[in-house]
Parts: sequence; C-alpha cells; structure tokens
Amino acid sequence: MKKVKVAVVGYGVIGQRLADGVAMQQDMELFGVVDAAPTLSVRALKDKGMPYKLYAAFPEAKTALEAAGIPVSGTMEDVLNNVDIVLDATSAGIGAKNKELYKAHSLKAVFQGGEKNDVADVFFHGYANYEKGLGQDFLKLTSCNTTGLIRAIDCLDREVGIEKVAITIVRRVADPGDYHRGLTNALKVDKAPNHQAVDLMTIMPHIDATGLLVHTPVTHGHFISVVATPKKDISVDEVIASFEAHDRIKVVSIDEGFLGNASVFRYGRDVGNPRGDVYQIFIWKDMIVKSGKNIMFGIHIPQESVTIPETIDAIRAALETQTTREAGTTETNKYLGLL
Amino acid sequence: MKKVKVAVVGYGVIGQRLADGVAMQQDMELFGVVDAAPTLSVRALKDKGMPYKLYAAFPEAKTALEAAGIPVSGTMEDVLNNVDIVLDATSAGIGAKNKELYKAHSLKAVFQGGEKNDVADVFFHGYANYEKGLGQDFLKLTSCNTTGLIRAIDCLDREVGIEKVAITIVRRVADPGDYHRGLTNALKVDKAPNHQAVDLMTIMPHIDATGLLVHTPVTHGHFISVVATPKKDISVDEVIASFEAHDRIKVVSIDEGFLGNASVFRYGRDVGNPRGDVYQIFIWKDMIVKSGKNIMFGIHIPQESVTIPETIDAIRAALETQTTREAGTTETNKYLGLL
Amino acid sequence: MKKVKVAVVGYGVIGQRLADGVAMQQDMELFGVVDAAPTLSVRALKDKGMPYKLYAAFPEAKTALEAAGIPVSGTMEDVLNNVDIVLDATSAGIGAKNKELYKAHSLKAVFQGGEKNDVADVFFHGYANYEKGLGQDFLKLTSCNTTGLIRAIDCLDREVGIEKVAITIVRRVADPGDYHRGLTNALKVDKAPNHQAVDLMTIMPHIDATGLLVHTPVTHGHFISVVATPKKDISVDEVIASFEAHDRIKVVSIDEGFLGNASVFRYGRDVGNPRGDVYQIFIWKDMIVKSGKNIMFGIHIPQESVTIPETIDAIRAALETQTTREAGTTETNKYLGLL
Amino acid sequence: MKKVKVAVVGYGVIGQRLADGVAMQQDMELFGVVDAAPTLSVRALKDKGMPYKLYAAFPEAKTALEAAGIPVSGTMEDVLNNVDIVLDATSAGIGAKNKELYKAHSLKAVFQGGEKNDVADVFFHGYANYEKGLGQDFLKLTSCNTTGLIRAIDCLDREVGIEKVAITIVRRVADPGDYHRGLTNALKVDKAPNHQAVDLMTIMPHIDATGLLVHTPVTHGHFISVVATPKKDISVDEVIASFEAHDRIKVVSIDEGFLGNASVFRYGRDVGNPRGDVYQIFIWKDMIVKSGKNIMFGIHIPQESVTIPETIDAIRAALETQTTREAGTTETNKYLGLL
Repeated sequence: MKKVKVAVVGYGVIGQRLADGVAMQQDMELFGVVDAAPTLSVRALKDKGMPYKLYAAFPEAKTALEAAGIPVSGTMEDVLNNVDIVLDATSAGIGAKNKELYKAHSLKAVFQGGEKNDVADVFFHGYANYEKGLGQDFLKLTSCNTTGLIRAIDCLDREVGIEKVAITIVRRVADPGDYHRGLTNALKVDKAPNHQAVDLMTIMPHIDATGLLVHTPVTHGHFISVVATPKKDISVDEVIASFEAHDRIKVVSIDEGFLGNASVFRYGRDVGNPRGDVYQIFIWKDMIVKSGKNIMFGIHIPQESVTIPETIDAIRAALETQTTREAGTTETNKYLGLL
Repeated sequence: MKKVKVAVVGYGVIGQRLADGVAMQQDMELFGVVDAAPTLSVRALKDKGMPYKLYAAFPEAKTALEAAGIPVSGTMEDVLNNVDIVLDATSAGIGAKNKELYKAHSLKAVFQGGEKNDVADVFFHGYANYEKGLGQDFLKLTSCNTTGLIRAIDCLDREVGIEKVAITIVRRVADPGDYHRGLTNALKVDKAPNHQAVDLMTIMPHIDATGLLVHTPVTHGHFISVVATPKKDISVDEVIASFEAHDRIKVVSIDEGFLGNASVFRYGRDVGNPRGDVYQIFIWKDMIVKSGKNIMFGIHIPQESVTIPETIDAIRAALETQTTREAGTTETNKYLGLL
Repeated sequence: MKKVKVAVVGYGVIGQRLADGVAMQQDMELFGVVDAAPTLSVRALKDKGMPYKLYAAFPEAKTALEAAGIPVSGTMEDVLNNVDIVLDATSAGIGAKNKELYKAHSLKAVFQGGEKNDVADVFFHGYANYEKGLGQDFLKLTSCNTTGLIRAIDCLDREVGIEKVAITIVRRVADPGDYHRGLTNALKVDKAPNHQAVDLMTIMPHIDATGLLVHTPVTHGHFISVVATPKKDISVDEVIASFEAHDRIKVVSIDEGFLGNASVFRYGRDVGNPRGDVYQIFIWKDMIVKSGKNIMFGIHIPQESVTIPETIDAIRAALETQTTREAGTTETNKYLGLL
Repeated sequence: MKKVKVAVVGYGVIGQRLADGVAMQQDMELFGVVDAAPTLSVRALKDKGMPYKLYAAFPEAKTALEAAGIPVSGTMEDVLNNVDIVLDATSAGIGAKNKELYKAHSLKAVFQGGEKNDVADVFFHGYANYEKGLGQDFLKLTSCNTTGLIRAIDCLDREVGIEKVAITIVRRVADPGDYHRGLTNALKVDKAPNHQAVDLMTIMPHIDATGLLVHTPVTHGHFISVVATPKKDISVDEVIASFEAHDRIKVVSIDEGFLGNASVFRYGRDVGNPRGDVYQIFIWKDMIVKSGKNIMFGIHIPQESVTIPETIDAIRAALETQTTREAGTTETNKYLGLL
C-alpha cells in the first residue's frame, strides 16, 4: 500500500508531537516539518540529528535557519508540492492564512483548536464525529480540553446516553518551558460558560452543556471536574468498566501513587515515553461519585499530547483511508501503542 | 448591659482575626489572647504595642515568651477564671485536649473546623442552624470552605429550596506566610466525596451533596464551583439579586477588575481592611449560568477571615444574647461593618 | 508654616502608597490623586469613602470614571494649577509625556524608576545623593531593588568605604494582584550585568558593581544577595550594628520566625500596617558571612513600598524644605514612624 | 573483559537514573534494582516491561510488591551475593543502615549526597578528587548542587587557579512529581554559609568558599550565581572557551532561546533525552561578567540527573577499573554520549 504523505507545519509544542505521532503510523510517511525560525525546538531537532527534514516557511526563514546552523531541506513550496495532507500546528491565526496556500495546492489540511471554527469544513473529534470528517478538505480539531472531555463524555454517551453536562475546568496556565505567559500566585476566572462547554455542544448537539473555568499556576495538565446526567442510571463500577475499556482513557487511583497532575507527568517520564508525554486522559477511580442519578468524576488532560491521536484520526477521515470511526481510531491506536 | 467576656486561645492565622473581630463587637470584651510560644504573630502583637493582653498557655510558655521580650499578663488559668466563653483556635487536636480544661471551669467554648465533630455538642453555622446553637456549651464551626459555601446555598435555599448540590473545590494549599506546607507546580486531588459536601449535608440534611477537591499552589482564597439543583426555577437575575441582598456575600464582576482570587486580595488591601482581609465571600456575576433548571456559579472563599463572622454568631447563640438567627447575625454584621 | 502641596499622578501600586505616605507628612498636603480609568484600586478608593480627592487624567477619563460611579473632583488641569510638586507614578513611558505638561505649568516633578534616566535632571536616592537633588526641577527615583540595595551599601560605605559590589537578584516577577505578567514554574535569567548594578554605579560612581538577575515566581519581595568588598576590614557584628542603627533597615533572624519573603509579608499584615506594607528593607542577621575581607549578606526588598520614603525625600530636596541629607531623611522618617 | 556487576538500591528519582546510566556503560552490567514498595516509579518499571530486574529490600517488601502485581526477582540478599558494588540511592539515613549489610557482604558502595559524610571513607567528585576514591570501599558523592558547582570551579581552577568563591544558590524546592515538599508563593532562606560552600572546601581545601541559599517554588533545576576570584586574570572569552571544552558543561545563550531553567528542561525533552534529563550543567554565555579580576557567572544544575556521571566515575575509582581522573571520567563520558 502506498503510504500517505504528511507534512507538519509549525514545529512547536503541538507540531513536534504531531510529527512524532505521524512517524509512528506505518501507513503514513512524514515528509517533513516546516518552521520559520531557529527556535529552541528547532535547535533541539538539529541536536538530535535531524530525524525529520526541516523546511523553511518562507525564503527569509531559510536564511535565518541556515545562519543558525540548522540544515534546511527546502521551503514550504517544496512541501506543498509533495504531500497529500498538511497538519497545521502554527500559532492561532496563522493557520487561516496558510489555508489559502493549501487551497492553491489543492491540499487537504487539519487545523488545531486555536484556529477559528470557520477555517474548516468540519469541527472534528475522532471518537464523537469521525464520519463527519470523511472526505472533507479542511478539518479543525477540538482544543486539548475539549478533546479529552469529549472522549470521556462520548464513552458514557454510547453506554447510557448523556443528557446534560456541567464542567469545571482547572486549567494549567502555561506549558513547561513557556515564558510568554504565566500566572504567579493567582487563580484567574473566565466569563461563563467556557468555550469547551460550547464546543462540546457543537460536536455533540444532543447534549446540554455549561461550565466554569479557572486558570491555575501549574504547567502539567488540566483537570476537569464533570457532572454528567445520564439518560438511564449507571453504577460507579459500570462507569469504571466503561472507561477502562476505552483505548484512550487510563483509569488510575490515588492509592497507586497518582496524587495529581504532577504524578501523571512523573509516570510518563518514568515509563519511558518520549518527552514524558501520555496520549491518554487519566481518570481517577476513587474520584467517581454519584449524586442521585448524576455522575461526578475528574479527568486529567495532558495538554501537550492529548490531541495527537484525534488529529491522526482526522488524517484517516479526510483521506478516507479508513471509513468508519471504529476502523479509523483503532488504526491510530495500534500504531500509537494504545490498544 | 454587661459585656460578654471572651478569650481567644491560639493566636495564629485564625486566632488573631477572631481577636480583632471580637474587639469590634460593642457588646463583648476581649479579655485577652493565649499562646504558647513567641511566634512571628506574637512578636508582631508586641511590636504593635500589645493592643490585646497575652496569656501563656502554660507556665513554661510564660518563661519562653518572656525570654523573647514579650509582655505576658498571666497564664491560661487566669483567663479561664475570668471569661464567659472561649474561642479555641489552636492547631487541630489541641482543642479536644483544651476542652477538658474548659469543662473543669464550667466554661462554654467554640472550636474551629479543624477539630473533630465530636468535640462539640453542635456543628454550627450562623445562617444555616443558629437556633441549634442556642444555649449549647460546646460548638464547632464549619471549616472555611464549608462556611462560605453554606452561606451561598442557605441563601438560595431560603429563596427557592435547594435539592441537590455538586461542588468542585479549587483549594488554596497554604496561607500567605506558611512554610510548613505547600505545593510547587502540582495539583493534588483528594478522594471523593470531599468533606465539605459531607459537612454541608450534616448542617443541611435535606440537601443531597457531593463533590471533588483539587489543591492548587496559591495562597489567597479557595474557589468553589457549585452546581445547585433548585426545587423551583429561578433566573440568573434573581440569583444575583438574592446574593446581593445578603450581608456576607459580595457580588462582583470581571469587568470591574475582579479577575480572580488575587484581585480580591488586592481589593482587600487597597480598600484599607486590616491585613487586607475580607469577611464576605465573593461571587462573580458573570460566572452564573444555568443548565436546565440547574444553577452553576463560582465562589471565592477568603480562607483566613471567612469564619470570623459565623464564629462570633456562635458566641451569641451559645450565650443566648440573641435568640434568633436574624437578630444574632444582624448584630454581628453591624459591628463588623457588613450591613 | 505653609504646607507643601503635592499631587500623585497614577493611582496604581506605587501611586496609592505615595499618596498614603505623603498624607502622613505633617508639612505636606496631599492635594489629590490622578487616574485615567475606574481600575480596581480606584474603585477601592471610592469604597473606602474617597479619603483622597480624585482627578481625571483627561476629560474622557472623567466620563469613564463617573460612568462607573466614582466621584471626580476635576481634571489634571485643576491639579497642575494648584500644587507645588507632582509625584508621577504612571506606567513606564507615560511620565516622559506628562513631563511636558509639568513644564508648561512650571511644576517640579519626581518620576519613578520605570522612566528613562533622561526624563530627569538627577537620578536620586535620599541617602546616597540627597544634595544632588536640591532645587532640581525633575528627579527620577532609583527602582525598588536599587533603592533598597543602595540603602544597605551606602550604610556600609559611610562606615568603612566600599570598593566593589557583586549582587545576585532573586526578583519577584509580579506584584500581588498582577494578572498582566507572571511566571509559572520557571526561573528567568537576564543578560548580565543587571541594570541595578549599573544604576548603583551611576548613583555611587566610586564603587565597581556588577551582578546577575533571576526572576522567580513569587509576589512578595525581591531578595538580593550581596558580596561587598570593603576598604577596611569590618566584623560581622559591626556590620549588624551598622544596619541596626539605620532607620530604614530592619535586622531580623530566622530564629524569630523570619523564614523568607513570605514571613516579612505576614509580619507586615500582623503588625497592622496598611496593606501589610513595610518601608524598611529586611536583612537577616544569620545570613551575614565573610570570605576574606568580603562581606556577604541577603536583603529582602518589599517592592511595593520600598521607594516611598526616598520619593518623599525627593520632595524635600527638590523644594529645599530641608537642605541636608540628614535633615531631609530624618523628617521623612519621623512622619513615617521609622525613627 | 569481565563486566563489573552493579546493583542500584533505592529506585526513586536518583536510583532510576543511576540504573539507566549504569545500563549504558558497556563495561558494566546492571544486575538489578532494589526497592521496598510499589511506588509509582516501580509501577512504571513494570509498565515498561521490567527492563531491569527488581529485588525486594526485605521479605515483607516482596509480599507487598507482588500483591501490587510487580514481578520480583528476589531479595536484597540475592543482590548482595552477586554484585561487585552497590549504588545506594535510598532516602537520607537509610544508606547508613544499609552500610552494615554491605560490609557484612564485603561489598563496596557509593552513597548519595543525602547521607552524612562519615558514612564514607571519602567524599568524592569525579573531576575534583578522582584519585582519592581509588580502591576505597565506601564513597559518598557530593550533592547535586555541589557536584555541578565543583565541575565549573574545578574547570577554572585547572585553568588559572581559584582562590575564593562566593555563591548564591537559587534552589528548586521540589522535584517534578513531589508531593511531600513544596513552597507556595514563598522564598525560604537558610542560615549562612550554606552546606554547598562548606562541602566545596572539603573537596577543594585550597579554596575559601562561602555562600547564601534561597529556596524557590520551582521544580526544574537549581541556579547558582558564582563570584570566583582567580589567581591570575582571565578574560570572559577564555572562561567561555574553558567551559566549552568541558564534556559535562554546556554553554548556551539567552538568544538561542535558553531563557531559564524551564528552557533547559524543554530542550532536554525536545532533544529526545529519556525523561528529558540532561547530564551537563548549563552555563549562560551572556551572563558571564567581571568585576575587577573576579569572574561572575550563572549555572543551571539539573538536580535529578547531574550526579549520575560522577557516581559512575565513583564505581570506576572504587574498583580501580580506571586509575586516573582523565581515564575514568572519559570512559564514563563516552558511554553517556558526553564526548
């Protein structure tokens, strides 16, 4: 079988992880990555021996990269002429501009959650609406929180049906290594409802969702507290069993040593994952409670890596290499070691 | 009218604020405060000229305090022979031991939330169960989070009746100046349900409550996200009006500059409150949303000072200086400037 | 004696404290404060009953302030026509523009450390170069770190002469309540030498100074580690005695409970200071060590309030109400309670 | 050549990294690792397929580990009968107890910095006193800060001779994943001089050292500000060249994107290092300044991994597999990829 040729445009926090994820798919070929400046991540790419070819976003960028001693294999133009699909992981707003380039080259593209919804034909989640992405040209992934949240809600929804969701997001305010944003000894609140609740309703229109969001001064992972109203009653044990059966959900407990977000990150490092990343969302077995029929539980969202699997699903949907949700997500999970 | 004589035992974070609060009550006399060591707060008491008399918790403590140059007016014994009631704000566990002393002196006492429930005859909240405290010997206050949470729930409950509550507590992990506890770049989760939900049900047994708790690395104020199910429908505007009419609730908005917990603390300092403290809980007008009949909103709990008003209510209840919730809380509010 | 009329332009973190400090000077009259928007601090001014008159920075600002329910006594123009001197505590860069207004009204002004040096005729420090400020029209204060650092260095310099200084600044990255800047789990380094070392040499040109700076994610106070080379040997006890004799230096110890910056802030709150502020720098007795002749010690700089005394000194120098360093600083210290 | 058999006792933050480091040495065989409980790190070892055999620290530990589903290959006794040397990375204090076991089995051992000096025959640093470790039975490594600091000081000392050192340590207070310690919005000071300065003098007795230490609320890396007095003058460029020639020092700059400790950690992750660890200390080219003859510079110490190379040097010294500093450190560097 001919491999699908993929390029990743924007080699930042998400772009690097998309490149790594695509490189693990045996039915895909990572043609290369594109960036515009000799950032620390690009320097690290060089220092590890250029496992991926780097292309300059535009001619001047090539000069700047080469001046910093970074090997450059060509420009964006070379990439666009040689791939089947682009994963655009540039900073918010740039993707919309790049879209014109992709269009001009009759290329499909998948955008990340930072772009506006109207950049895409479909707002996509591998598990919740895979079929809507089939054959589409431009897909936009849900944001990291929404991606992880929908995994869990979709899982329960297929089990018993979910009517209503109220979420409280305890959001990490910056990624490890971020110096352009941060909070010091401060929680910051957002006007309600938060966009994640709204986005959930866009993807799953049969659910009534609302929520609050509080930014907190930590870097490793968001925490979402969910109150979900099911259509029919479900026990805590059944909820656990349902989550445990999901390939992209890992059920853990405080007693095992998972004391919070920092434990998840430590686990990811100790288990030997590149960058200490995890693709799964983590749900605490000992934090699932009921109030009447309502189920309340807490999710850890590893913000740097959580959207990688669903973005790869998007490639399969857009190019129709797999035409069902089941087949598409299973293929991704197989190569990412999530089965 | 003869003033009620009150002693505060334990001059730490809470004890200091209780002393300040009692000193503001025109129908009470602060006989003095008791501590066991020349802590930084005790040194500060000396440096501001001993506005309150200090008594040593036991004879050796007197020696230690005097060795540090702190004027000591006597020992615990002197206090117990001269007051009508004791506010015990010692570290968790000490209060239970002190109770034997209070009993031996036929003294009433009010304990803080850190003690076990069985230390007291009644688990008390000024607004939710004032009458249960009437004439009791030993009362235990709800903890800071529970005190603030119940204010808001009781407010809505009296308005429309509340059936069910699901809370997510984003807990500040340490007080400003704490060096014995802290988290660094970590969220910490607790097994669910959290004790605050359980405590709420103890005080308000007609409500079904549950909740999750996440500790966060900040020092100024907890944040509680509440999903409340009312008995009858109530609009967001009616919720706001109800909160605005409450003397111990302050309704604010992001647009006014209240961006989060740090804004509340800044406001408290800028408005000239001693220590920058606020007695009210703060609720964001622009964070109140509905999902079906359910009301979702966020509360800021100023952990150092929030229990002061309800503790003073407890004095009035225990000594029956006011025999109704309305009269008791209004008297406290009057002297604390909360009307 | 006729009182000097002072206005404070910019009612933010520094401006509020300047207003409070000036209001304490019995030979000065605070004419009013000027701001441009209904910030949280301005709302707090209203909520505490407008102890200072507020003037709008420009006509549109008046409209905005009044729309927010803030009483406005007039505009900048009214202020400029009625005062002897302006303390400009606006955001960096605005002061330079305001200077033209002050000039047009033949008014003297004192700028804060954020402005460029060339905005002023003299770069001023109350203890180190008071006489240079005498009769000058435009003075610029040293920044908070430099102000505190120079206090300590000037103190030792007058005792034994200081030849060389190497400083390491552990800088708090944001003020309590700041949401526009912050670091999360990150130290940030600056290119060396830091501006504080350079500024020290501008004020004290006979000293060779250099230094490194690291930003840290805390809000209460900078810490400066100083290695000072004296002209003649001085013992640790003599250093302590010298610092203890200084009105704007407080010598403390870990054993008393001063475990770090957070203890200083707690002390300031507990001792009853408005906003918990302290005007002194704090030096740890048990952190003074020697290496050969060199003296090494650590200073806590309370960044929000440390420049207030030296700024008030600047008023006395500019208006020549006191013509010697000794008289000028003593007068300020007397009214601020620092003698 | 027969490979040296090594066991690592204590599979925590340091123990894991020692195991990884030893496993990379082609002249060594990692016999196994020892631990006492199914910690998160031990669970991660299982989840990655037991690349190292695990032994139980004592019989009851075996039961507990197996109850948690962790494969156990035997007990400490089995380990002690089969290895040439033990790397003890247990919690502070346990190593001293374990020493009796090692003695009983006539085994050599290397302890980490948390143990008291008298646990060992020699206080060891691969670069500064390799020869002192030759043939010794019990060696204790310098702590993480001291290990990194001595690398830099020894490097300059061999170049021009160093007389005097004054250090300011900005210490990260907890490791990523730590929940048993932490600071929240607080700097904490220690009595001076800090132990690192004292330890430096123990290892390098010809240098006069002193220093201050401030704990800061971050998790990735300490920062040390050094003022070093050389015997003869050396230019900034020569200092840079000297550091650049050292295999365990990496010279970086702010302009390349190394903005602070968080950038180093991001680089380690992006460059593909296991756990994102780096073995080198990082020194900023644009933070090296001079004051007279004195050189001032800043070092980043990656606290989790920095002692690994010197601990492996200690194996070579104790077992005399290499008998000179040059040969011993080069062999270690070769296998760790540091040449």
